[in-house]
Amino acid sequence: MRESYHESLHEIDTLMIEMTRLVGRAMSHATQALLDADLQSAEKVIAEDEHLDAINAEVDERAFQLVARQQPVAGELRRLLSALRISSSLERMGDLAVHVAKTTRLRYPDSVVPVELRGVVSDMGAIAQRIVHQTGAAMSSHSLEQAQRAVETDVQMDRLHREMFNIMLSPTWTHGVEAAVDMTLVSRFYERFADHAVTVNKRIVHVVTGEPYVGGKTPE
Amino acid sequence: MRESYHESLHEIDTLMIEMTRLVGRAMSHATQALLDADLQSAEKVIAEDEHLDAINAEVDERAFQLVARQQPVAGELRRLLSALRISSSLERMGDLAVHVAKTTRLRYPDSVVPVELRGVVSDMGAIAQRIVHQTGAAMSSHSLEQAQRAVETDVQMDRLHREMFNIMLSPTWTHGVEAAVDMTLVSRFYERFADHAVTVNKRIVHVVTGEPYVGGKTPE
Repeated sequence: MRESYHESLHEIDTLMIEMTRLVGRAMSHATQALLDADLQSAEKVIAEDEHLDAINAEVDERAFQLVARQQPVAGELRRLLSALRISSSLERMGDLAVHVAKTTRLRYPDSVVPVELRGVVSDMGAIAQRIVHQTGAAMSSHSLEQAQRAVETDVQMDRLHREMFNIMLSPTWTHGVEAAVDMTLVSRFYERFADHAVTVNKRIVHVVTGEPYVGGKTPE
Repeated sequence: MRESYHESLHEIDTLMIEMTRLVGRAMSHATQALLDADLQSAEKVIAEDEHLDAINAEVDERAFQLVARQQPVAGELRRLLSALRISSSLERMGDLAVHVAKTTRLRYPDSVVPVELRGVVSDMGAIAQRIVHQTGAAMSSHSLEQAQRAVETDVQMDRLHREMFNIMLSPTWTHGVEAAVDMTLVSRFYERFADHAVTVNKRIVHVVTGEPYVGGKTPE
């Protein structure tokens, strides 16, 4: 019985690592679709989010059943309750990739991204990939160093977020209010995506060390 | 022992209802500070958020201890695990009020809100109050009708969010890109605030009915 219980715990981890892979792919495709004004790719990101929602629901159900039936000891209970929260955060990261994809769809066949912002958007997409990979690695290795690396990667996302605003608010901006409104939201979606990854990594640290979860504020 | 256990369950509810009150007050003061360019009120909202974070941590700790020590039956376990998520959502709603307050601080002594948008912002603040009251009422009465009312109130927030964009993107907009960028983010903060209230009410429905939690997507 305990053997199968530990297998079940392990399966929950496997599901969450699969979520990081799907979330990374979603944001990668959403970024490419945004840069290329590629409606078909954008629609695919939107449609495939269902899969993430389904895995999230499965993690919820499995964790609930384990807590209800197995009376886990403190460390295992912390791990299971953290799994509930981690999978919620990953599900939300999938939603943010969908938001980026929907922005592409909203303006299609026009492109959302003015030429001066293509570099920043491309960098935001790359940083989103990196933070997701670091998160998956932290999850599978239970590594505090990997988790810390993800937190540091978020600093780079915040820098790109500010750079986006600097470009839009410079006197040389010629793309008007609509492009600025769109790009403000897009930039916010990437920034929140990385914030959620940080939350996930802080929960991993909490599970590994047993120290209290420290949410804290992400700097503005 | 069971008596004190039920008291503990009840205390968690009391803490969460207190959180709805604090969150409502924070967003009300943040809205007024934004409309009046009132730095002192904005700073107060920012400082008082600590209190919400502390209650959130207390709900977490109490729910964890009850699950670990009392082996709750399925309905009670559902209630405790939902409490963890509900208090996270309420804590996040407090953060969004802080974001509004920080926008006031960022532009002080200038006003963030152009005159054409004062009505929409004021309405968003009022809708934020309404949805928080409905959420507190749903929580204390375990009422599905109240929870449903909150979900309907969110539709009004989404309408105001669209109205905000319509005004900013109209040819008569004379306030330039910076004001539009600021107001895009502010509008998003109110919209997300209401979305989190909807999430809380869906979790209340889940606890009351025992039916699966249906997160679903909030319409764009």
